[in-house]
Amino acid sequence: MNIIDIINKKEAKGELTNEELKYVVDNYLNGNIDDAQVSSLLMAICINGMTDNEIFELTDIFLNSGDKIDLSTIDGIKVDKHSTGGIGDKTTLVLVPLVASTGVNVAKMSGKSLGFTGGTIDKLESIPGFKTDLELEEFLCQVRKIGAALVSQTGNLVPADKKIYSLRDVTGTVESLPLIAVSIMSKKLASGVDKIVIDLKIGDGALIKTISEAKTLGRIMVEIGNHYGKEVVCVVTNMNEPLGHAIGNSLEVMEAIDTLKDNGPDDLKKLVLTLGSYMVSMAKNISYNDAQKELIVNLKNGLAYKKFLELVNMQHGSIENLKVSSKVFSLKSKKTGFVNEIKAQRLGELVRSIGGGRYHKEDNINYEIGFLLNKKVGDYVLEDEELIKIYLGDKDINVNEVLDCFKIDIEPVKEIPLVYGVIK
Amino acid sequence: MNIIDIINKKEAKGELTNEELKYVVDNYLNGNIDDAQVSSLLMAICINGMTDNEIFELTDIFLNSGDKIDLSTIDGIKVDKHSTGGIGDKTTLVLVPLVASTGVNVAKMSGKSLGFTGGTIDKLESIPGFKTDLELEEFLCQVRKIGAALVSQTGNLVPADKKIYSLRDVTGTVESLPLIAVSIMSKKLASGVDKIVIDLKIGDGALIKTISEAKTLGRIMVEIGNHYGKEVVCVVTNMNEPLGHAIGNSLEVMEAIDTLKDNGPDDLKKLVLTLGSYMVSMAKNISYNDAQKELIVNLKNGLAYKKFLELVNMQHGSIENLKVSSKVFSLKSKKTGFVNEIKAQRLGELVRSIGGGRYHKEDNINYEIGFLLNKKVGDYVLEDEELIKIYLGDKDINVNEVLDCFKIDIEPVKEIPLVYGVIK
Repeated sequence: MNIIDIINKKEAKGELTNEELKYVVDNYLNGNIDDAQVSSLLMAICINGMTDNEIFELTDIFLNSGDKIDLSTIDGIKVDKHSTGGIGDKTTLVLVPLVASTGVNVAKMSGKSLGFTGGTIDKLESIPGFKTDLELEEFLCQVRKIGAALVSQTGNLVPADKKIYSLRDVTGTVESLPLIAVSIMSKKLASGVDKIVIDLKIGDGALIKTISEAKTLGRIMVEIGNHYGKEVVCVVTNMNEPLGHAIGNSLEVMEAIDTLKDNGPDDLKKLVLTLGSYMVSMAKNISYNDAQKELIVNLKNGLAYKKFLELVNMQHGSIENLKVSSKVFSLKSKKTGFVNEIKAQRLGELVRSIGGGRYHKEDNINYEIGFLLNKKVGDYVLEDEELIKIYLGDKDINVNEVLDCFKIDIEPVKEIPLVYGVIK
Repeated sequence: MNIIDIINKKEAKGELTNEELKYVVDNYLNGNIDDAQVSSLLMAICINGMTDNEIFELTDIFLNSGDKIDLSTIDGIKVDKHSTGGIGDKTTLVLVPLVASTGVNVAKMSGKSLGFTGGTIDKLESIPGFKTDLELEEFLCQVRKIGAALVSQTGNLVPADKKIYSLRDVTGTVESLPLIAVSIMSKKLASGVDKIVIDLKIGDGALIKTISEAKTLGRIMVEIGNHYGKEVVCVVTNMNEPLGHAIGNSLEVMEAIDTLKDNGPDDLKKLVLTLGSYMVSMAKNISYNDAQKELIVNLKNGLAYKKFLELVNMQHGSIENLKVSSKVFSLKSKKTGFVNEIKAQRLGELVRSIGGGRYHKEDNINYEIGFLLNKKVGDYVLEDEELIKIYLGDKDINVNEVLDCFKIDIEPVKEIPLVYGVIK
């Protein structure tokens, strides 16, 4: 077996065998096959696709390339949520304590930001003192104790994905639905959960741009899950504008807290209830509607927020000391009309440019900066009325670039639904 | 401009602009873009192809990446021949003195072997003393003096092709007709000739396997030539069996000498006369038939061979000392019948495996070893009659692997023509 033959087989639309895929991954990890050879193969995969069989085999090879977490010491059915990423996405911060407040154990691992979207771990670390790097046993112990933990990845999970993802990032080979599915699912499977809810975001601020791509990706992920006997539900949701009003770490934590106090923005609340209802109904084997009722009750009666405080406390954080920048700039609309578009990706990039995200792994984040939208898509805005608040640190911003993210017209556009559909 | 956008544009079947192609080549040569990024783009090109415009632009960028040779101090129209490579291809050794013997100046640069085919420079270097690395002025001076020189590449011609070809070799991105055309034509254009005859070999022992691919490649090369106002003739020829009887460096030189003495194998003589007739007719602006008559005369009257001796002498070689191994093994047929197939590529690989070629640039070659076919496709062979002579050095060979290269049947197959057609 040699790498050139394998590359040429995929170039000619051939189906790679388990042995061939394993040969590539093993030899890439041990350094016998180099970046250039793997990136050539990855591009052939991007263009010519992968068969279901190749997808299953590669997921298995990825999954077995590193540690797998054993959650068997935690009671009940373990349900996880994964988001394909978007702007202002603080869903996990609300969802984990909310679902845990109904008695479902949630052992959640999250990632840091890279690219134009934020990362849950960075948002949590904007809470002074909050510890995200727990040892595995500490992590499991906390879930057994209070039913919830929110940590950064523990152990050496799926090193094959880590190395190949970094390569895809710099070689223009990110946008392959089979490779995205394998990357997500191998990590979820390695994290040891029983059932998985995926928030598959589409639109300007997401990696996936069209409903048809989302359907294909969703179908692949459900099939991978089923192949391992794990139920997977993909909820396809709108990321054509930022989720909620806040973009930026501390600001997003504050909005998550508001939502846990049942005082959050409509779209965020609706998304949390949708994803949460699937999680609880799967974990408790009850209907979606019954699950939703429990969640609504726990938002109203304060149990969800209480669980959040408990979690923050267990992980040594103190929300009393959560800070946002005092250098606030209110950006006004230059015309009157309906906000018909808010460019989510561009706003995400601008937050990163003023210090709210990373360009390189080692970059430091300024947690206190970001944006707070005063208007969302569909809102009516008057000339000179506030569109958005900008929280600045020591980096400047060109306000015209922020203004350009808003499209304001005399006539309103048709409303886009928050949830497009569900694949399961 | 950035490399990821350029890769993704080609991935989506877009047409790259001159600026984008130049950005890639310049930044690859100066190290700002790495192997993995270029190999991803090369694979996208292999699968999605290139437009004529992209091909012209890339040829121009390649051509201008290094030195260009000025042949204006040599009288007359300068005609060059290029072969896409095959097994037992000693054509250049016969062609250069033969064409020069008619008064046409031939300033020929050739390459070394890499892969399973041999290289003209290695064949020449099997002649004791023969000097292939002349300085540019020495090279031109010799052509002015005796009308012919045969050297390895002089100057820094097309460094972009050199670097990208090495990468293609290890990343499975060799088999792209546009990339092959750009690679060949940029080097020919940089070598300063006026007219080019290309021996486009197809079949088992060649890079190009089908007539349809050959037609496409031929058309692209003719168009690139015309774009620069240079006449190009592509002769599509058969490489389904080795050319002539000899494979291996010294053995091939001996066969070339026999051919120059008008005592060579039919197929080699026919190919040399075909290619040579195009060269002479273009250089002298006479008809193909008149050119061929001159060549036949000069093979018969000894002028071609005399020119060869003159060339060898000028480049310090002495054919008297040409040696082949005395460890000769005669391999007999195990059955009686017609030789219907001789696997050229496999024989080339076997010659390399016993020391006649290189696996790495720095490998030393044993010039004295190789194969001498006693039977060619179409010949009748008796059981226990010699099929092939094996000249061995210090490396062993499994004779069954050699026997497996011959397909012997009771019924003969239809003869394949040596020349399939001409594209101009």
